[in-house]
Amino acid sequence: MIVVLRPDATKKEIDHIIERIKQLGLSVHISKGKERTILGAIGDESILEEHPIDMLPGIEKVMPILKPYKLVSREFQKEDSIINVDGIKIGGKQIQVIAGPCSVETREILINTAQRIKKAGAKFLRGGAFKPRTSPYAFQGLGEEGLLFLLEAKKKTGLPIVTELLDPRDTEVVYEYADIIQIGARNMQNFRLLTEVGKLDKPVLLKRGLSATIKEFLMSAEYIASQGNRKIILCERGIRTFETAVRNTLDLSAVPVLKEETHLPVFIDPSHAVGRWDMVAPLAKAAIAVGADGLMIEVHSDPENALCDGSQSLKPSKFDKLMKELKKVAIAVGRTM
Amino acid sequence: MIVVLRPDATKKEIDHIIERIKQLGLSVHISKGKERTILGAIGDESILEEHPIDMLPGIEKVMPILKPYKLVSREFQKEDSIINVDGIKIGGKQIQVIAGPCSVETREILINTAQRIKKAGAKFLRGGAFKPRTSPYAFQGLGEEGLLFLLEAKKKTGLPIVTELLDPRDTEVVYEYADIIQIGARNMQNFRLLTEVGKLDKPVLLKRGLSATIKEFLMSAEYIASQGNRKIILCERGIRTFETAVRNTLDLSAVPVLKEETHLPVFIDPSHAVGRWDMVAPLAKAAIAVGADGLMIEVHSDPENALCDGSQSLKPSKFDKLMKELKKVAIAVGRTM
Amino acid sequence: MIVVLRPDATKKEIDHIIERIKQLGLSVHISKGKERTILGAIGDESILEEHPIDMLPGIEKVMPILKPYKLVSREFQKEDSIINVDGIKIGGKQIQVIAGPCSVETREILINTAQRIKKAGAKFLRGGAFKPRTSPYAFQGLGEEGLLFLLEAKKKTGLPIVTELLDPRDTEVVYEYADIIQIGARNMQNFRLLTEVGKLDKPVLLKRGLSATIKEFLMSAEYIASQGNRKIILCERGIRTFETAVRNTLDLSAVPVLKEETHLPVFIDPSHAVGRWDMVAPLAKAAIAVGADGLMIEVHSDPENALCDGSQSLKPSKFDKLMKELKKVAIAVGRTM
Amino acid sequence: MIVVLRPDATKKEIDHIIERIKQLGLSVHISKGKERTILGAIGDESILEEHPIDMLPGIEKVMPILKPYKLVSREFQKEDSIINVDGIKIGGKQIQVIAGPCSVETREILINTAQRIKKAGAKFLRGGAFKPRTSPYAFQGLGEEGLLFLLEAKKKTGLPIVTELLDPRDTEVVYEYADIIQIGARNMQNFRLLTEVGKLDKPVLLKRGLSATIKEFLMSAEYIASQGNRKIILCERGIRTFETAVRNTLDLSAVPVLKEETHLPVFIDPSHAVGRWDMVAPLAKAAIAVGADGLMIEVHSDPENALCDGSQSLKPSKFDKLMKELKKVAIAVGRTM
Repeated sequence: MIVVLRPDATKKEIDHIIERIKQLGLSVHISKGKERTILGAIGDESILEEHPIDMLPGIEKVMPILKPYKLVSREFQKEDSIINVDGIKIGGKQIQVIAGPCSVETREILINTAQRIKKAGAKFLRGGAFKPRTSPYAFQGLGEEGLLFLLEAKKKTGLPIVTELLDPRDTEVVYEYADIIQIGARNMQNFRLLTEVGKLDKPVLLKRGLSATIKEFLMSAEYIASQGNRKIILCERGIRTFETAVRNTLDLSAVPVLKEETHLPVFIDPSHAVGRWDMVAPLAKAAIAVGADGLMIEVHSDPENALCDGSQSLKPSKFDKLMKELKKVAIAVGRTM
Repeated sequence: MIVVLRPDATKKEIDHIIERIKQLGLSVHISKGKERTILGAIGDESILEEHPIDMLPGIEKVMPILKPYKLVSREFQKEDSIINVDGIKIGGKQIQVIAGPCSVETREILINTAQRIKKAGAKFLRGGAFKPRTSPYAFQGLGEEGLLFLLEAKKKTGLPIVTELLDPRDTEVVYEYADIIQIGARNMQNFRLLTEVGKLDKPVLLKRGLSATIKEFLMSAEYIASQGNRKIILCERGIRTFETAVRNTLDLSAVPVLKEETHLPVFIDPSHAVGRWDMVAPLAKAAIAVGADGLMIEVHSDPENALCDGSQSLKPSKFDKLMKELKKVAIAVGRTM
Repeated sequence: MIVVLRPDATKKEIDHIIERIKQLGLSVHISKGKERTILGAIGDESILEEHPIDMLPGIEKVMPILKPYKLVSREFQKEDSIINVDGIKIGGKQIQVIAGPCSVETREILINTAQRIKKAGAKFLRGGAFKPRTSPYAFQGLGEEGLLFLLEAKKKTGLPIVTELLDPRDTEVVYEYADIIQIGARNMQNFRLLTEVGKLDKPVLLKRGLSATIKEFLMSAEYIASQGNRKIILCERGIRTFETAVRNTLDLSAVPVLKEETHLPVFIDPSHAVGRWDMVAPLAKAAIAVGADGLMIEVHSDPENALCDGSQSLKPSKFDKLMKELKKVAIAVGRTM
Repeated sequence: MIVVLRPDATKKEIDHIIERIKQLGLSVHISKGKERTILGAIGDESILEEHPIDMLPGIEKVMPILKPYKLVSREFQKEDSIINVDGIKIGGKQIQVIAGPCSVETREILINTAQRIKKAGAKFLRGGAFKPRTSPYAFQGLGEEGLLFLLEAKKKTGLPIVTELLDPRDTEVVYEYADIIQIGARNMQNFRLLTEVGKLDKPVLLKRGLSATIKEFLMSAEYIASQGNRKIILCERGIRTFETAVRNTLDLSAVPVLKEETHLPVFIDPSHAVGRWDMVAPLAKAAIAVGADGLMIEVHSDPENALCDGSQSLKPSKFDKLMKELKKVAIAVGRTM
């Protein structure tokens, strides 16, 4: 850690800063420049997370040297993590697609949609049984009944299930049915929920919060990893910006940044980002071109009657067409699909 | 609701849109302008939350007329809500100050801090027993032991307790000790937690999420209100913007906007917003000048050794001085303190 | 235009609003719903840009129906604009690449870079003679000498020149040398400069401002078009968000949105957005996949010694490799390069 | 400057980095920690603005120690700058108010408004003769005729004139009439314009750009100061965020930050930020409470017929009432008005 002293810091202040850093078990190295004196605090920098010193008089700024995440960092593990779900590899050369309706609504729609996406080449079925809705008056999901429908769709199609966990009290029931447990964007910093899924042995798909920096996103992944569960899939789904032409701004530069910072697989959810089905296709292609390991796409066999986010759901026929186009882009960038 | 049709919408598309709106129980009024045809959907607009129609072919845009929140709206209740806690009125002419450490760390520091803030004129003691920390390696709070210390401080000072609920599984224990239950910024859209506190009969202090619009903020309050609990205090604590000179940008214009939109009391937390103790004072004064009903300020008797956010904590002596200055501003804008 | 009245609007207020709308030459249509009365103002909505009415008592909100831009809108011209520069078509099936150094520094570097990018397949040479620099102490460009070097490079390679106009007083000299005149992001709302280039007969490459909405971006294009010059190329180059991992957040969803809203060609500048040469390649591929008509990429034959933005410049060898990769992506999405 | 090396940097890479830093005239100090090796580059850091080294292989990140602005920094000049205009002191204990219409429209309205604001206690008259309008179809200002009206209003009231310069070609004419030359938010990084006003001997009121960081804002002030003109007044007028309830988010925390970083006076323009006249009053009070040196407020004697931003203009009677309220707040925070 680098501590930049104020030009007017007194000797007494400086001595106190040095003493304080030493108290915390770090050694101090002083470097006097023409305009500023700098202290290098050498040792376990993470202690300063717990005991910040930036409010000490005489300090202009404190600059951390190391990244706050460890287990999920590329430095900790050089090679890409590959997560195996029922023989399907996530994070390798093959791009995987998760598809399905936003929420599970009826048995018929779900099974029909599952069969259609399976045929089009999707490898996982998504569907929410517990739904986080911004309005208390909106459909909140079918609950465990929805999970039962997902299981039936899985039996009929062989597609493993991706479904969201909203509440620590539902951990057991969601664990029972899900093959991949999703943590939604609004829960990215629900640290209790992260701790719960960190104790499980099933993969977690962690969505980036609407206003989460990449550093915070990785810290949330670190929460899960720190509990023992290293099977984490990161998913960018749009960030909140000033632009209102689309629902959220899909941050595709997050993909190369994450690929540099972490060994975890990175997915993109264009449907939630853009909020309009007619713009899902170009963004899905861009996601593959930029280096994502997979996609999460909303497909609904009857979007007009969907109880949740019908506006952003593709019809199965459009999804089928898109999958063919995506395959071409995947090949163009040296991936398979 | 107003539906603007695309200039190239076909008769078949328009007929289908009209039929769909009627199916949802609304009546339709058509208005042909020179450049656009507009449909007015008259009736219970909220049905369209559940069944959005914006993906229907032929529609250019859909514009809601009504606000999505009801119980918390100024339209629903014209006069200001006043929340009475142990005889202290929140939301009236008197400005109330909640003060205390970010987290409860030791019995001594807590009690000492409580006595000092009481003397300075604070009316409530804050302190976190359960702490949401961005790093899994940071201090997570003392848990129930912390609540016991808060209770002891309350007994010694008479200050009612404001403390955070993080996890629905802790609802009972937090309910037992707290006088006001805080929902933190990161949980503003933890809808399950909102539903839990909505069922309680104690006041809830709801913090605005870092990237929550005012509309979303009020929708979260509506979640709580819709369960029966109308004792809600809103608290602005800084939003995430591009500016990095301070931790978050305190959105003081939220106060007049909220005062127009809702009858609920509005507090400001300058400490978390700015993240630096030396800028708490000017922002606290501005908060009162702009019309806030109260403040939440971090005070710690030994910030240098604080386990959490010491950088933003005032020492009791500075807090004492600030309270005197705030009183003057309160009087200048016609309030008491 | 739709005027939503406040539920407590008085008859006198409503009469005044109606009278005012009629005064402006529009006719009024009244629609009474259960919870709100709505006025439809029918006629030339643009008059309300000049004479806004939203401050009249009794009005809750005013919602425009029409878009504020005309000439650049897809509604005004259905088919894509194709801009022909020395026989090279911009906006058609073929994707065009503009490459070169951020600023023109020496004759040798410029000519060498131009020859290398030409060989790799770029169709235009970029290079700034007048540079907008955030620091008054940084290199401000060679001025007209730089333009002379560009001309020489053009003569040697045949590549038409793209260069920036900063100041209305330089219009003549830049016009003389440039084949495409660039308006930089910081000047996107320099309306005097837009008016100047709007009077010229050479194509304008208009960069999106860091915090410009797509609507504002198109309004700036409308400025140019309203003066007579319809040869406008739009260029997205990253927007300002809370994320600091990269310099700016490249908004690739802007491409499908712009393609829907306007007939003008859309380019992407990944170099300025990301600010790091090692992330230019994935974003360039994504730009083509999402549907951009062209790219603007910084290439410098000696980035280590560049006087401006060396960090984001590709070496010619990397650029050469990238162009081969881009071609594959272009073909995968049905374009040529 | 601190250079953090990648953990896998090779000896050859490190040698090259060191050699490069020395070439630039700085000396290098090496510090090996457990997890990272750090280079301290000692000497004139500003050379690295011109010659950035962050793209050199082996470098993880480069962290500047010094601030990029000098003349405007508090470090350069400890005591507050006080700018004297016709005997009125800006930046001292007394808070100054600039008021008037957004644009000069008619002689009568201007003179009438000037007389009313003068009576209410404003010290400067604002009014735009050249207007930057987002639509090419909107009123663009009266030009020099507007300046003549301003001069007449000045003669009648004694109020010095604040008016905007948009285009370097208008410098002479604006200089002739203005007492304070305003640079608008959209021109904050119009570096040519900054250079022009930097050469003048009249005070400049520099508005913060909608997406400008405080560092960038101060760099623009540095541009002006570097040309010789040190009479600079900074003006915060709202930044662009995700919130749409108001036009822009007024960043009042900018005031204490600027007061720490610079010796220049800081003004607040609540009218442009909030865009609604009914919210100007609370934000104006907050601005004074937070420590601003002055305010810029839109007042128009007939806002309903204003050709520009009538929605945000106070009527003279409301302004009069506001001035009385502001005085009380000023006194409460130890200022005069």
